[in-house]
Amino acid sequence: MSFKNYKKYEPVKLDDRRWPSNTIKKAPIWCSVDLRDGNQSLPIPMNVEKKTKMFYLLKEMGFKEIEVGFPSASKAEFDFTRKLIEENMLDDDMTIQVLTQAREELIKKTFEAIDGCKRAIVHVYNSTSTLQREVVFKKDKEAIIDIAVNGVKLIKECAKKSNVKEIILEYSPESFTGTELDYALEICEAVIEAWEPTEENKIIINLPATVEMSMPNVYADQIEWFCRNISCRESVIISVHTHNDRGTGVAATELAMLAGADRVEGTLFGNGERTGNLDMLTVAMNLYSQGIDPELNIDNINHIITVYEECTLLKVHERHPYAGELVYTAFSGSHQDAIKKGLDVYNQNENKYWEVPYLPINPSDIGREYEAIIRINSQSGKGGIAYILQAEYGYKLPKKMHPEVGKLIQGVTDRTGKELNPQEIYDIFNKEYFEQDSILSLNRFESIIEDKDTKKKDVKVTVSAEVTFRGETKQVKGIGNGPIAAFVKGIRELDIEPFKLVEYEEHSMNGGADAQAVAYIGLINEKDEVKFGIGKDSNINLASIRALISAINRHMKN
Amino acid sequence: MSFKNYKKYEPVKLDDRRWPSNTIKKAPIWCSVDLRDGNQSLPIPMNVEKKTKMFYLLKEMGFKEIEVGFPSASKAEFDFTRKLIEENMLDDDMTIQVLTQAREELIKKTFEAIDGCKRAIVHVYNSTSTLQREVVFKKDKEAIIDIAVNGVKLIKECAKKSNVKEIILEYSPESFTGTELDYALEICEAVIEAWEPTEENKIIINLPATVEMSMPNVYADQIEWFCRNISCRESVIISVHTHNDRGTGVAATELAMLAGADRVEGTLFGNGERTGNLDMLTVAMNLYSQGIDPELNIDNINHIITVYEECTLLKVHERHPYAGELVYTAFSGSHQDAIKKGLDVYNQNENKYWEVPYLPINPSDIGREYEAIIRINSQSGKGGIAYILQAEYGYKLPKKMHPEVGKLIQGVTDRTGKELNPQEIYDIFNKEYFEQDSILSLNRFESIIEDKDTKKKDVKVTVSAEVTFRGETKQVKGIGNGPIAAFVKGIRELDIEPFKLVEYEEHSMNGGADAQAVAYIGLINEKDEVKFGIGKDSNINLASIRALISAINRHMKN
Repeated sequence: MSFKNYKKYEPVKLDDRRWPSNTIKKAPIWCSVDLRDGNQSLPIPMNVEKKTKMFYLLKEMGFKEIEVGFPSASKAEFDFTRKLIEENMLDDDMTIQVLTQAREELIKKTFEAIDGCKRAIVHVYNSTSTLQREVVFKKDKEAIIDIAVNGVKLIKECAKKSNVKEIILEYSPESFTGTELDYALEICEAVIEAWEPTEENKIIINLPATVEMSMPNVYADQIEWFCRNISCRESVIISVHTHNDRGTGVAATELAMLAGADRVEGTLFGNGERTGNLDMLTVAMNLYSQGIDPELNIDNINHIITVYEECTLLKVHERHPYAGELVYTAFSGSHQDAIKKGLDVYNQNENKYWEVPYLPINPSDIGREYEAIIRINSQSGKGGIAYILQAEYGYKLPKKMHPEVGKLIQGVTDRTGKELNPQEIYDIFNKEYFEQDSILSLNRFESIIEDKDTKKKDVKVTVSAEVTFRGETKQVKGIGNGPIAAFVKGIRELDIEPFKLVEYEEHSMNGGADAQAVAYIGLINEKDEVKFGIGKDSNINLASIRALISAINRHMKN
Repeated sequence: MSFKNYKKYEPVKLDDRRWPSNTIKKAPIWCSVDLRDGNQSLPIPMNVEKKTKMFYLLKEMGFKEIEVGFPSASKAEFDFTRKLIEENMLDDDMTIQVLTQAREELIKKTFEAIDGCKRAIVHVYNSTSTLQREVVFKKDKEAIIDIAVNGVKLIKECAKKSNVKEIILEYSPESFTGTELDYALEICEAVIEAWEPTEENKIIINLPATVEMSMPNVYADQIEWFCRNISCRESVIISVHTHNDRGTGVAATELAMLAGADRVEGTLFGNGERTGNLDMLTVAMNLYSQGIDPELNIDNINHIITVYEECTLLKVHERHPYAGELVYTAFSGSHQDAIKKGLDVYNQNENKYWEVPYLPINPSDIGREYEAIIRINSQSGKGGIAYILQAEYGYKLPKKMHPEVGKLIQGVTDRTGKELNPQEIYDIFNKEYFEQDSILSLNRFESIIEDKDTKKKDVKVTVSAEVTFRGETKQVKGIGNGPIAAFVKGIRELDIEPFKLVEYEEHSMNGGADAQAVAYIGLINEKDEVKFGIGKDSNINLASIRALISAINRHMKN
């Protein structure tokens, strides 16, 4: 490892820069690239169903420009674009954007994809960086300009023939931040000349930090230099598209907005290749917290997180700005005290500006609870509780069980108003899940695998057990393909409300063949209420039967 | 929710600012606050053992200044400080830093904690922000200055009496970014006057963005203004301590360095209250990638991640700059192609600067493998594989099993050189884990719970089974406290190498009482090699027995 193998990034000569004295006064034109740039970076890209779900989320949030795919690159992307158009999924004020390279067959296919659409942004790109010209394309500057200009001319022709009423051109000199600034301008001027935009029909020039290669102030200098030097600024929308390789993607976009950028491309929670794209939600909330209308609906961040996590299979980190599970949490005693005092003053004075120490925004503005802070302070929030039960006591609760356990503990802190230490949390947990036999309890359990030939598919298990149900001793017998199924059949004759098993997980505690097994079973009743039970035993059957009984008792006692 | 409830942050009047024309030329003085600010934000704070582990990691990495705790606040912090000193855990060029509020009893306790130490930074703070003065302390500006000055005078007295050879003072106007800039300067000047620093014995003035309240350029303006207006700049080390509420903590620190900051406080991976502290590793790697010596050892990022995750119980996100699992990964075909061409050119030209498209640094510099990129491109990296097996096929592999399955799939891509789709990955996985019966297989299985009284602790299970072992049919019988233990005892008479069970997890597939159960069992042999087996059956016993047999076959066939 040696730092000597790296070159310094060349700063921009712009001593009379103006952007550091500017302030942001309004939201940019937002363009979501979740369905394209975000999607292409996922270990498992979204299928049409997930893309549809994500699309509706973006629409709900108020995105008016959405890059929906690279339709000439794959059938799935093509089909999804068609679906959007044919099923009329777009509102009139929305514009879809489609990406294409500057190659004839791809451009033609792109126009097939958007056929019948009211308005579309055709986003054409080619890589212009010094490095890519040399090692990837092995072409000189002129040849790279030709690729872009020929692509644009073809798009112009296709647009004339197309039945799409309004075609807006977006051009990206890809790897802009690796391109000589004057050459990037030169290629963009050539594109503009070929397209002939007007003040009414503007062109979008998108200047991507495809790889974040410099400090954000240098990117801002580049954007200001570009805005000041481009020939027909009034006919151009300057768009930025930052990545986060140096951890400063948000700053780069914001400083670029000071420097003149009109439009911002990004994704929810910064999903994207490598370290990700710009996190648009953070920029939007940064505007919001400065009294500027973000022009996006973010009043239910939990809903946004849920859909995002379902579609991308990525998690939002605990410390993610505005959204993470721990960001409205204070563990330090002095912080807790200051927040409490600040909240007291805020609540006494209605209609005042939000000002509470250590809470940059009012969590309830985006559907989070600031009441939760005090509870989580006592380490009893859902995240904290799951940590404690796993780290200190070895229970790996199924993810779906976390809210139930969180609510249980918070119920106690609410009633008592006091902080709980790990032992107290464990005691409540233990009592709730392991001492559940008031309605149904197990006295004797016997299971025999009847069909002994394990090569057959239908192994049958007979369970014979003695239970106490509402004070009476009962003998139950059942046959099923496993001990749980057999026992469930056995207890059907008792007056137990109907339920279905929706979740089962089991793990060993400590390890070793003689270790204890812990089973978690989630049961759903006819009112769609899910309750979990936990069972622990050296025998894996008995652990799961005990979990089942724990869940039944918890369901029936309420 | 309304943006109208928020006030705009007041910018600094500094039209002749110089920082935007500066560039960073060397690493700052680093100070790790992992053991204090980082630790206080953890759902489960570190115990002495974990603090020790983290301390040695920081020492290995080359941190010379480490804030080790708030010893007057808790016995654990006091004891850890004593341990460091009494067990001589510090090298001569290292300095511990201890935090204290400006209160007499706390300052005295702090000096007890550092007794016998060679050199220490005593870090005293009080909150100076407009909001906290009003709602928390209900004191005017003069009274807040008195708190700071009286604290500093007491520290000066204690330092004279102390046997610590060198006491360095650090003062933080806490919530600096919420404080009127001229008042922050006034209180710092009063502190400096009380302490009387010299060029040889400098004072550290730390200007924390306790809550990140503005854009990073505004923070840089504040730092430049402060540096230009402070009376004895040459006797002062200006330190910055940023948080990440607006997602621009890294940028704020970097722009502050342009503006004159000499010293940077932060944590590994930005652990800390709410959205976290400054991520020092990202700043260090940003310097590194610009040809500047970061003055920290980061050549084994995986080791740093492992210790960090063990100590904090937090995870490093997949997209975390420089460190995340997905950051040296390219999924897009055109990116893969460009990387391949770039690597080819780089490898042909030794001693050249690192320049490869889409890879800002050479992953091998920090102990990651760029060879892995091509494999992960084919969605066969350990993370990708686990995603696919869970999302598409429902297998929730135990975390400890991921490397084994990753290696299995990568072995195939290495041999064949081709990309694998999810179905092909599943086929390899299926063959490896579910078609394992060449050495040991199960023909018949019967288990009876003998001691039927489930209230007793020692339930005994008798297993009677028929297996085929190396082509011969064998009857086995065993007794244990569960079916796995009983079966393990039963097969002891066969010539099977000794092993221990180290991991067991089981979960349902799909749900419903008749659903399939999947069991994962990890066995360790006498050479400390761990191999997993998987079993699937509608019966939870048989699933685990099948998992055991799968693991035994996988162990013995090699």
